[in-house]
Amino acid sequence: MRQYPRSLNKLINELGKLPGIGGKTAQRLAFHILSLTDREAESLAEAIVEAKNSLHYCSVCGNLTDKEVCSICADEARDRSTICVVETPQDVLAMERIREYHGTYHVLHGAISPAEGIGPADINLKSLIERLQSSDEVKEVIIATNPNIEGEATAMYISRLIKPAGIKVTRIAHGIPVGGDLEYADEVTLLKAIEGRREL
Amino acid sequence: MRQYPRSLNKLINELGKLPGIGGKTAQRLAFHILSLTDREAESLAEAIVEAKNSLHYCSVCGNLTDKEVCSICADEARDRSTICVVETPQDVLAMERIREYHGTYHVLHGAISPAEGIGPADINLKSLIERLQSSDEVKEVIIATNPNIEGEATAMYISRLIKPAGIKVTRIAHGIPVGGDLEYADEVTLLKAIEGRREL
Repeated sequence: MRQYPRSLNKLINELGKLPGIGGKTAQRLAFHILSLTDREAESLAEAIVEAKNSLHYCSVCGNLTDKEVCSICADEARDRSTICVVETPQDVLAMERIREYHGTYHVLHGAISPAEGIGPADINLKSLIERLQSSDEVKEVIIATNPNIEGEATAMYISRLIKPAGIKVTRIAHGIPVGGDLEYADEVTLLKAIEGRREL
Repeated sequence: MRQYPRSLNKLINELGKLPGIGGKTAQRLAFHILSLTDREAESLAEAIVEAKNSLHYCSVCGNLTDKEVCSICADEARDRSTICVVETPQDVLAMERIREYHGTYHVLHGAISPAEGIGPADINLKSLIERLQSSDEVKEVIIATNPNIEGEATAMYISRLIKPAGIKVTRIAHGIPVGGDLEYADEVTLLKAIEGRREL
């Protein structure tokens, strides 16, 4: 046995394709899976296929959902006058965790990045414009893309695109995280924190 | 959406049960799986079920195999006069990697650990004794359990059990790893290295 049996090699190989899972970890996970009961292993395999088959993007906002329209867009209690623009469905969950935002979302599935050849047409932006054009309910668009080069470029692009329509466009604040230490803040964050200072 | 859709939660939950995979990693892996093609996701799911269904322990040595007897035990070219006793199938692969050992193996699937309530009857030891009794081919048993308390206790136990039968019992050497640095070696390893010194 210079190698593991074929089916074990295949499993190690498949697990090794996952992000952040190297050869050694894939091997450890594979041996763990072999130690599971048949029922447990099947449950894991089923979860993969089921999630893959049942999930797709909301036809309105692009969020992940197992229905035609996601639970937020379908929720009558949400404030339709505000749209928060984020890069990923994970960002929607992060926003929801604060339990203070009651508007709707728009998920771009990426950010504009000329360096990587990702232009405005490659992200879920057209449907945002259509949303704004088809209804005059929306009063404010909060741009919550990530505070990096791509996120800022995307924020600027969207802002220039929709401001002429008379819609208020805002950007989430950047600064020192709560509980963070000024001493350890990087210079760009500190600069943003000073630029964004408010009168007390 | 205070939560992800049900099938996504299920997938994150299943992935989070794997060793070393925390909540954040499970989430990242789940989103990666959603980004795969249907074919790729099915391939991963199939690999899990197939490995789980097709693999079991060799009826002779306890190594992992997809046949009745593993490829090493079935190999006529292997030297049946030597059995190398290891704790896990992974250890077999580690030994095979040196390409210098041509004997057979016996996989214990653990080590004796009174602290954890694992006694000699809880590891794959009885079948080793039966192997030795059923044939007088075996001249040497090399004990390659791990150099920790459990591994040493197991080595001592096996040694006392089979030495009376006139079979040579050896233990792999412990010492400074090749390329290692004396300065950084722990005291126990250094002691073992001195105890195991050889004349040049």
